[in-house]
Amino acid sequence: MAKGKKKQGGEGGAKKAAPALSELLRVPGGERVDLSAHDPAATPAGPKDKASGVAASAELGVRLAGLQERLWAAGSAGDRRRVLLILQGMDTSGKGGTVKHVIGQFNPSGCRIKGFKAPTPEELNHPFLWRVVKALPEPGEIGIFDRSQYEDVLVARVRELVPRASLGRRYGQINRFEKTLAEDGVTVVKCFLHISYEQQKRRLLERLDNPDKYWKFSPGDIEDRALWPAYQEAYEIALERCSTDAAPWFVIPADRKWYRNWAVSKLLLEHLEALDPQYPKAEFDVAECRRRLLAMD
Amino acid sequence: MAKGKKKQGGEGGAKKAAPALSELLRVPGGERVDLSAHDPAATPAGPKDKASGVAASAELGVRLAGLQERLWAAGSAGDRRRVLLILQGMDTSGKGGTVKHVIGQFNPSGCRIKGFKAPTPEELNHPFLWRVVKALPEPGEIGIFDRSQYEDVLVARVRELVPRASLGRRYGQINRFEKTLAEDGVTVVKCFLHISYEQQKRRLLERLDNPDKYWKFSPGDIEDRALWPAYQEAYEIALERCSTDAAPWFVIPADRKWYRNWAVSKLLLEHLEALDPQYPKAEFDVAECRRRLLAMD
Repeated sequence: MAKGKKKQGGEGGAKKAAPALSELLRVPGGERVDLSAHDPAATPAGPKDKASGVAASAELGVRLAGLQERLWAAGSAGDRRRVLLILQGMDTSGKGGTVKHVIGQFNPSGCRIKGFKAPTPEELNHPFLWRVVKALPEPGEIGIFDRSQYEDVLVARVRELVPRASLGRRYGQINRFEKTLAEDGVTVVKCFLHISYEQQKRRLLERLDNPDKYWKFSPGDIEDRALWPAYQEAYEIALERCSTDAAPWFVIPADRKWYRNWAVSKLLLEHLEALDPQYPKAEFDVAECRRRLLAMD
Repeated sequence: MAKGKKKQGGEGGAKKAAPALSELLRVPGGERVDLSAHDPAATPAGPKDKASGVAASAELGVRLAGLQERLWAAGSAGDRRRVLLILQGMDTSGKGGTVKHVIGQFNPSGCRIKGFKAPTPEELNHPFLWRVVKALPEPGEIGIFDRSQYEDVLVARVRELVPRASLGRRYGQINRFEKTLAEDGVTVVKCFLHISYEQQKRRLLERLDNPDKYWKFSPGDIEDRALWPAYQEAYEIALERCSTDAAPWFVIPADRKWYRNWAVSKLLLEHLEALDPQYPKAEFDVAECRRRLLAMD
């Protein structure tokens, strides 16, 4: 699904193309996931330092914007395909920063961004996927979820917000939901932004050191941090059970912000290249329209 | 409403500050509007050529992003204020381009963009403002309407889609609606992107000359162009009746794309500076949180 159909992006000439980043970062479904075996500071492919990472992301941004326009144009002519980027991760893992830096490269008109917070009373009166369905991208759009249906098997699991039996059923419900989405033309790209316990501490302290960042902090963040092992385990279970062919999970090393931005950009690029959206053909007589226009003055 | 509260942006030292762009472009309410007296190629303030216009817009973009973050931060702490940018204009006037270039400078997470198309059957079963209310920005957000409730007094008037009496009532309904919005903390900035008849012809022909732009064209655009005088009159009436203190209209000279982008950026800047949003104070004990964090390892 993720490999570029054609020329693997066009980087290489004679040299063999590198394996797609999607293959490198993808979580094999159904296998036990051990997050401690994934280095959050790794740079498994692509740029190796910040300067080249920022430059490479900017270059990807231009290509992403071009593909997005094609996707959107195709969507305006009946192509139902669309992309849904799901961002999950511990506090400070960079979900918001990814939206700002990666999604900020797209034309905002074609993006549909939804941040999921604690469910409202109205949302709690519905099945947990109800609010998710309402936020889905339309044909041609790139949808972005900052948190998602996975909160309902993450915080819900760690904080024991639902009976264990209901929780257990949710993994299958999510998988069936995502399979239906895929069948309807949604390319689902699920990114777990993986940071280390130490990195989170640094980032939380940064927020406390700068009054302009107080608003990003809540004492609840400390309570969640105290539950770090339980959250990691909840993520491992979600990644194991819900990395499917229809909607795989990717583990993004996110201790380095520039690498995280590059990796998410590159993943999106690979998926958009695989979609290979095309500008629609004219459904009208171009020459006649030109004649009519020229005759109007 | 639009003047910077404090130092008028900080450009001037000894020299007298230039009148705010908002004052220059604002439509005086209740006075007869003659669009033919407004030059769509004018550059009534600010940069005079493309290079300096693009540079000035980029510089404004940085300041806009900073103010947006403050607005959003304040919104997260109970400040209900928000901005609603309404973009109207003839086909090819640059509504989409303005979203791409001006709104693209903001953090997309804090923007809520809605493009209004022909009403759906469900929307037609409700009052015309029903779908508008659903698309409003939430506290801290910058909402952007690409077309808006004004379509219901523009195309609805020109194409006679509703009885004349209903149409006549809509201007007052819009004014009352917008006044209520303003009272609830919404800064409404209504921009009419003013292009010339000749410029529209050039832009429509461009779309027909480039297969990658066919998707932006529809033969209906020619039919609307044939109704140019009726549309200009409908705009004049809307601008005259609905430029209020609560929600004034601005006429943006839009034949030059770089000037249009600069002008809308500058208008937004003046309104955001007037709002002067502030990062919220900490509602928790910063020192204690720091101690708890440091003690966690």
